[in-house]
Amino acid sequence: MLNDFWYANSINTLSRLSRSRTITCRAAVAWAANSTLSIEEVQVEPPKAGEVRIKVTSTGICGSDDHAIKGLLSAVFPYIPGHEGAGIVESIGKGVSSVKPGDKVLTLIIPQCRECSSCLHPKGNFCEKQDALSSSGLMLDGTSRFTCKGKKIHHSFRTSTFTEYTVVLEIAVAKIDAAAPMDKVSAISCEVPTGYGAAVHSAKVTRGSTCVVYGLGGIGSAIVMGCKASGAARIIGVDINEEKFPRARALGVTDCLNPRKLKKPVQQVVMEMTGVGVDFAFEAIGLPDVMLAAWDSCHLSHGVCLIVGVAPSNSKLSLDASKIFSGRTLKGVCLGDYKTRDCIPQLVTDYLQNKINIDPLVTHQLPFDQLHKAFELYHAGKTIRCILLF
Amino acid sequence: MLNDFWYANSINTLSRLSRSRTITCRAAVAWAANSTLSIEEVQVEPPKAGEVRIKVTSTGICGSDDHAIKGLLSAVFPYIPGHEGAGIVESIGKGVSSVKPGDKVLTLIIPQCRECSSCLHPKGNFCEKQDALSSSGLMLDGTSRFTCKGKKIHHSFRTSTFTEYTVVLEIAVAKIDAAAPMDKVSAISCEVPTGYGAAVHSAKVTRGSTCVVYGLGGIGSAIVMGCKASGAARIIGVDINEEKFPRARALGVTDCLNPRKLKKPVQQVVMEMTGVGVDFAFEAIGLPDVMLAAWDSCHLSHGVCLIVGVAPSNSKLSLDASKIFSGRTLKGVCLGDYKTRDCIPQLVTDYLQNKINIDPLVTHQLPFDQLHKAFELYHAGKTIRCILLF
Repeated sequence: MLNDFWYANSINTLSRLSRSRTITCRAAVAWAANSTLSIEEVQVEPPKAGEVRIKVTSTGICGSDDHAIKGLLSAVFPYIPGHEGAGIVESIGKGVSSVKPGDKVLTLIIPQCRECSSCLHPKGNFCEKQDALSSSGLMLDGTSRFTCKGKKIHHSFRTSTFTEYTVVLEIAVAKIDAAAPMDKVSAISCEVPTGYGAAVHSAKVTRGSTCVVYGLGGIGSAIVMGCKASGAARIIGVDINEEKFPRARALGVTDCLNPRKLKKPVQQVVMEMTGVGVDFAFEAIGLPDVMLAAWDSCHLSHGVCLIVGVAPSNSKLSLDASKIFSGRTLKGVCLGDYKTRDCIPQLVTDYLQNKINIDPLVTHQLPFDQLHKAFELYHAGKTIRCILLF
Repeated sequence: MLNDFWYANSINTLSRLSRSRTITCRAAVAWAANSTLSIEEVQVEPPKAGEVRIKVTSTGICGSDDHAIKGLLSAVFPYIPGHEGAGIVESIGKGVSSVKPGDKVLTLIIPQCRECSSCLHPKGNFCEKQDALSSSGLMLDGTSRFTCKGKKIHHSFRTSTFTEYTVVLEIAVAKIDAAAPMDKVSAISCEVPTGYGAAVHSAKVTRGSTCVVYGLGGIGSAIVMGCKASGAARIIGVDINEEKFPRARALGVTDCLNPRKLKKPVQQVVMEMTGVGVDFAFEAIGLPDVMLAAWDSCHLSHGVCLIVGVAPSNSKLSLDASKIFSGRTLKGVCLGDYKTRDCIPQLVTDYLQNKINIDPLVTHQLPFDQLHKAFELYHAGKTIRCILLF
């Protein structure tokens, strides 16, 4: 808390001094697909109209960051990765009214502009101003706020949080409770709404139901928590890394399956275990084969398959068309279908009021310098969420 | 009505005489895939325990019948086609308590056993006792009630209504209002719940919404009626047969599209017409390419794609996996997700009370003898629903 207080005050001072100034700071740059991230000195321009410059205090490493760095998702190189960020507003551009310097905020991979067809629809949350589906790597005006060694550096999902300072659209900033512990709540920027939200808000998992969760990493673990909190009677967890199983069981998984050790396709085993298929299946990896397994694990009549993972560009999910009519539902989910600025601050408040416990989801915290070690831990499946601290 | 009264009385007399007797009557037999239906003299055995023998008074010709006859859907030849039937109970097997001889009934392609995992789930309707997904062509005991020229004839979807008499499971029989006009209400056995129900009950089409309906035949027309009744502001109708357009406009379609006359894929045209995609898309044909067009016509965030058509066995629906996470929903629908015995009788009552007007859906009525003419009209797209009368 003392640290947070210091931040808020120093940021206020900084903000008066640095407004309109370019800031030079450290950031991780992905120079090319599948290259090792390089910590560089970068220049971060001041925020333009409708933008906010944030001193990032912590950022999670999410699977989508890893997939984008590998070139599997839409991304424009070179760029600064990261989207799951918490920080303090350093300065604001013209017209920004919802946050002010010193405010604690989360960055949002999906903005909420409150004007587009998604935002205006009662159920939509995939704001048309997002840059996640088909990435431009640029801000809304078609330019970037980052340079490194004289070269333009692109944004990642219009968030870019692997940097001490970033510039984000005001509509992609959620102001959160001033009491929020900044070394943890970055998980509420993405992991918690994406996973927990998929179970409690999108699927509305029912009491006594049977669920299967494919992938027991950060998002999958948050899904398991949501299923458990919703009163699911049985939660089958699937992963090829058995090191994740004890942790998954602690969160609520009742049965663990390693598809590599099964003699039959995992969906067939889930069918046999449940007799009739599950009520809710979640895919939290982003691979079409796993999406198919999740779909085919569902009860043929009322089963609901939630696709939470983001699949590689141009990949196909191929369903048996003749069996669709029996009633199953396939639904894509992004950030738990929450309208981000409206709902995500409440998740922080819920955490502060002990209504949600995100602590088990944050297994590791490392200084930003140890970025590569954090990725190693992630790849080895040793972390649920590793948060990098600045 | 006089005719109905005569039926009920004669059936009561018949029932006393014929119980336990095999009935010889006329039926259409599909001897092999893609062969012309042949009207034959068939033997219909008495109902066994839990079964009901029905004097069929009328039957619709549904697309699924046509597809099954062509060998595109799961079917076991030779068999008696048809599932959309209305009739009067002729006799009942042991233990049958929900209907008695003389009752007016509809046959149900999806039974409601009230015991299986689908029936016991609040949202499920795809009863495990159905024979629609992977057809056995047999009753639950593994035998058939039909023979023709000494050969075993299979059942179709455990209904078989292209016959003067049929045997159906008690759980696949819906007792309906005694005042129901039997020359029309067969459409409420399948067409109305499948189409109208998909819009009003499954999708819950919202007031002011934009819809697209792929296929403007019987089911598609009933979907259009449901969209209109729900207050949809715009209903785009798609069909390759423009003869259907005036009729579709009369039912509520606001824009008609013929994909064969477009220079771009139809989904792209729908996207351009709506700017952002539709709120609700319905596929009422049963072709994977059309299912994909429906899916890709949907708003990326909150669009809901209802798959009502039954695709050929082993066909695949291949979705762009990388774009699923933005939020769209794909849902299969069978009989409007209605629990059949619980809900379908109410649709008949609603019709009698002028709450639903099914009359525009029944465009043709022909005597059973003119079966081939009825199929010609169906193939030419001249009918919404042609009902065969016995």
